[in-house]
Amino acid sequence: MTNAIDRNSYISPKAKLGRNVTVGHNTTIYDHVEIGDDSVICSNASVGEPLSAYYHDDRYQNPPTVIGPGSTIRSHSVIYAGCEIGEGFSSGHHVLIRSDTIIGKHCSIGSLSDIEGEVTIGSHCRLHSNIHISQTSSIGDCVWMFPFSVITNDPYPPSHDIRGAHIGSYSLLCVHAIVLAGLRVGENCLVGANSVVNKNLPDFSLASGTPLKVLDIRNYAVVGKGKLYPWMTRFERGMPWEGIGYEAWAAGQLRSASCHGD
Amino acid sequence: MTNAIDRNSYISPKAKLGRNVTVGHNTTIYDHVEIGDDSVICSNASVGEPLSAYYHDDRYQNPPTVIGPGSTIRSHSVIYAGCEIGEGFSSGHHVLIRSDTIIGKHCSIGSLSDIEGEVTIGSHCRLHSNIHISQTSSIGDCVWMFPFSVITNDPYPPSHDIRGAHIGSYSLLCVHAIVLAGLRVGENCLVGANSVVNKNLPDFSLASGTPLKVLDIRNYAVVGKGKLYPWMTRFERGMPWEGIGYEAWAAGQLRSASCHGD
Amino acid sequence: MTNAIDRNSYISPKAKLGRNVTVGHNTTIYDHVEIGDDSVICSNASVGEPLSAYYHDDRYQNPPTVIGPGSTIRSHSVIYAGCEIGEGFSSGHHVLIRSDTIIGKHCSIGSLSDIEGEVTIGSHCRLHSNIHISQTSSIGDCVWMFPFSVITNDPYPPSHDIRGAHIGSYSLLCVHAIVLAGLRVGENCLVGANSVVNKNLPDFSLASGTPLKVLDIRNYAVVGKGKLYPWMTRFERGMPWEGIGYEAWAAGQLRSASCHGD
Repeated sequence: MTNAIDRNSYISPKAKLGRNVTVGHNTTIYDHVEIGDDSVICSNASVGEPLSAYYHDDRYQNPPTVIGPGSTIRSHSVIYAGCEIGEGFSSGHHVLIRSDTIIGKHCSIGSLSDIEGEVTIGSHCRLHSNIHISQTSSIGDCVWMFPFSVITNDPYPPSHDIRGAHIGSYSLLCVHAIVLAGLRVGENCLVGANSVVNKNLPDFSLASGTPLKVLDIRNYAVVGKGKLYPWMTRFERGMPWEGIGYEAWAAGQLRSASCHGD
Repeated sequence: MTNAIDRNSYISPKAKLGRNVTVGHNTTIYDHVEIGDDSVICSNASVGEPLSAYYHDDRYQNPPTVIGPGSTIRSHSVIYAGCEIGEGFSSGHHVLIRSDTIIGKHCSIGSLSDIEGEVTIGSHCRLHSNIHISQTSSIGDCVWMFPFSVITNDPYPPSHDIRGAHIGSYSLLCVHAIVLAGLRVGENCLVGANSVVNKNLPDFSLASGTPLKVLDIRNYAVVGKGKLYPWMTRFERGMPWEGIGYEAWAAGQLRSASCHGD
Repeated sequence: MTNAIDRNSYISPKAKLGRNVTVGHNTTIYDHVEIGDDSVICSNASVGEPLSAYYHDDRYQNPPTVIGPGSTIRSHSVIYAGCEIGEGFSSGHHVLIRSDTIIGKHCSIGSLSDIEGEVTIGSHCRLHSNIHISQTSSIGDCVWMFPFSVITNDPYPPSHDIRGAHIGSYSLLCVHAIVLAGLRVGENCLVGANSVVNKNLPDFSLASGTPLKVLDIRNYAVVGKGKLYPWMTRFERGMPWEGIGYEAWAAGQLRSASCHGD
């Protein structure tokens, strides 16, 4: 299948495919899409999906779309023009990513998820299936979202006062968690299953229950397992500290940051 | 792209397309579909999707399907035969609308939503992504539904006593709101995030919390913003009162109704 | 349409289709798929979807996939290689079933649902639209799941301690119900709308509310209707006791089991 352009796929002559890119069946790659080396675009997908004006305005120009090298876009996914996605990206099936979304390196977004556009996502995030992120939301690095979790953006719907929430690095939103518009979830937080975040959460919050109760996650211990959060020292797969451990990696980050005077 | 029939799309000779209709790639338009002028049917979609009998009965006749003028059906959406959708409709991607659904004018239904059939939706409704409406439910005009909100239809599952709920005009169901089978949500209500409606709600209800608390929304004020509901005087975009204001429009409606003796 | 291979569909020469199988438009059936007699695979679907290695390894062999006779796979659905699905299966649209999922006879899985792989599902289950079942979960016979219900598999995310939950036969998960990782829901249970199961439930549990309250469902009566659960004596459609009644069928099962010395 190497570099194969399959049955009934269409690749715009204005798109640029890297070396060793595979394209599945019935897939469309529109103008001004750039796909990095060693990527796979599976069947029935659309990359660089044009904005509405494409259908009405003869002078329409598709904005540039970038998919980093080593990425996999699974079948029936739609990635709009104007997105910029870093290397090692992986999407599930039936994923929608709307325009002007910026995603860092080595992220994955699960099947049937909807990223509504103008969203910023850091690196190494793991967004599972069936999530919804509203426009103008932002997410740090190494964030996890689980099925049916949602980030909203309208505090008093319907309004024109659209402002997504922000989720800090290393935080987790469990299944059916809801973060309301405009709020900030700090770093290293865990929002429990089916919980509604209705106020800002400081770093290291364990937020759960109805009404929402907020504890310090560093005090949370499980019988027989001890303290489990922050989670970075006990989980490495796919994370930037894989193979070296979180502490060595974090120390390196710190050194590197101070070298650059940040 | 004007009136283009794109790569590998199929339009039944028994379908009727208006002037200036655009059809994307890999899309199928089945028998007895009528698409109004200036509409766009994007790629990988199916309009007039046949009922099960199509696959088993040689004498099967596809029931008529109507998509009003100025509509946009986005990619990977499936609209069953037997639906009747008014002008200015807009669907997101991966939307499913099952048979015998009737939708008024200028409605939108967001990506990955599922309208299960025999549903009636008024005009100017804004149903966001990832919603689910069960069979035989009905919705008034200018209703808003937010992601993962759901209307159910079986009070004691599994049963044959299927009866959808009704949502009154101008009401809002926030993210993850649930309306149980057979209930009536009045006009001008707001059901809060993650709330379960388990009884009928009178007009102007603000229903939220677990267990559900119901207040009069007209008394609800936000510090620095005052009273925000009903919302129609502070939001116009896409609503029938756009440009003239809700009060002038409503007065006109009243006059027009009394002229007709209604 | 009988046994038609439609416009732009591709069926691998290494796939085996039974008699009277219908395939829709733009559908791909991959290597080593076996489809039983009288089945329908609708448009824009993928059956035997290859695992990631397909795109990278020239020696990749697609694992066998079996779809039983009399099944219907609706449009835009993706069924991975390595699944084994019994007779009379029915999928909605945009359904995803990942690898190594085993499904019994006469099950249905609704539109926009995600079965994440290595899942075992019994016979006569009715999984409605928009559900999510995580890897390694299992489900008995005659189980019902309603929209946005979810079964999770990671007790302290992120971890490598992945263990799905188990749902016993005849149980129901209502809309937005959540069953947390590794737990067991017994037989004949009902989990209420929006409830979070955070402990094992014995047979005949009625579990609902926040925090979760567990009652014996056999004591639950509705005014004017009496006792409604277990539900098998009042609902037959599509169940193995259709036409003979649950009690006669169950007696037969018992006799048959004792004849075989089980």
